[in-house]
Amino acid sequence: MKVSVAWKENMRFEAANDSNDSRADMDSTDPELGGEGKGQSPKHMFLQSIAGCTAMDVIYILKKMREKLPDSFFIDVRGEVADEMPKVFKSINLVYNFKGKSDKEKLIKAVKLSQEKYCSISIMVRKICDFKYSVVLNGSTIHTEK
Amino acid sequence: MKVSVAWKENMRFEAANDSNDSRADMDSTDPELGGEGKGQSPKHMFLQSIAGCTAMDVIYILKKMREKLPDSFFIDVRGEVADEMPKVFKSINLVYNFKGKSDKEKLIKAVKLSQEKYCSISIMVRKICDFKYSVVLNGSTIHTEK
Repeated sequence: MKVSVAWKENMRFEAANDSNDSRADMDSTDPELGGEGKGQSPKHMFLQSIAGCTAMDVIYILKKMREKLPDSFFIDVRGEVADEMPKVFKSINLVYNFKGKSDKEKLIKAVKLSQEKYCSISIMVRKICDFKYSVVLNGSTIHTEK
Repeated sequence: MKVSVAWKENMRFEAANDSNDSRADMDSTDPELGGEGKGQSPKHMFLQSIAGCTAMDVIYILKKMREKLPDSFFIDVRGEVADEMPKVFKSINLVYNFKGKSDKEKLIKAVKLSQEKYCSISIMVRKICDFKYSVVLNGSTIHTEK
């Protein structure tokens, strides 16, 4: 697989891929570096790639289980960054937020399957920093990784 | 820092961040999973985050050096993925492509500084798979990481 990130101006870049013609805007969020915040920052995209990878797994696994899909579903990811250069991630925490009438145990099972078997990006990132997740259904935490 | 990835429909998601109101579309590229290719895939975004991180460094470092900025600059990233689940990256190869009249040695120095000191995402990803880069100026390879 191949991607391309092309400079536009200042700290703005356009990200493309070799599968389709969609594009994503990237920009630094740091005004001291010339960033104007007109796009996702590289670290945003790194965290978004983790969330997107496992979120797609979860929808796919729920469909395979013939379980009722949630009415809404989003993943929040918080990343804590080192104070010193290079500012690598020290810890990453995912919260899976579901709303709807999906079965609680099936949701937990789908998330666990993704985190333990399928989500290549989570599995890679677990090797380089603290990594935790929890699962919330209709506002209540139903699972926290031990 | 915090990001959020919200399900839209099928395998389509919208990625947001807590710094600005820009958004990025995500989608699977695999029709068997229900992907329609209407966005970057998670693995695309993972590779784009690496390229964006080091590309911003390079522009920033060239400015600090008061070196002539390139007329154009893009980074191609190729990722080779495991055949078996989980399909983690086995190798990642970056090609820095510059066009213009920037000094060859200054470009190489800026890329090396980013890769060795500043680019947190490259430094993290080097720990989990084979990682190489080369630098091309006006069509000629001027540096390859040994």
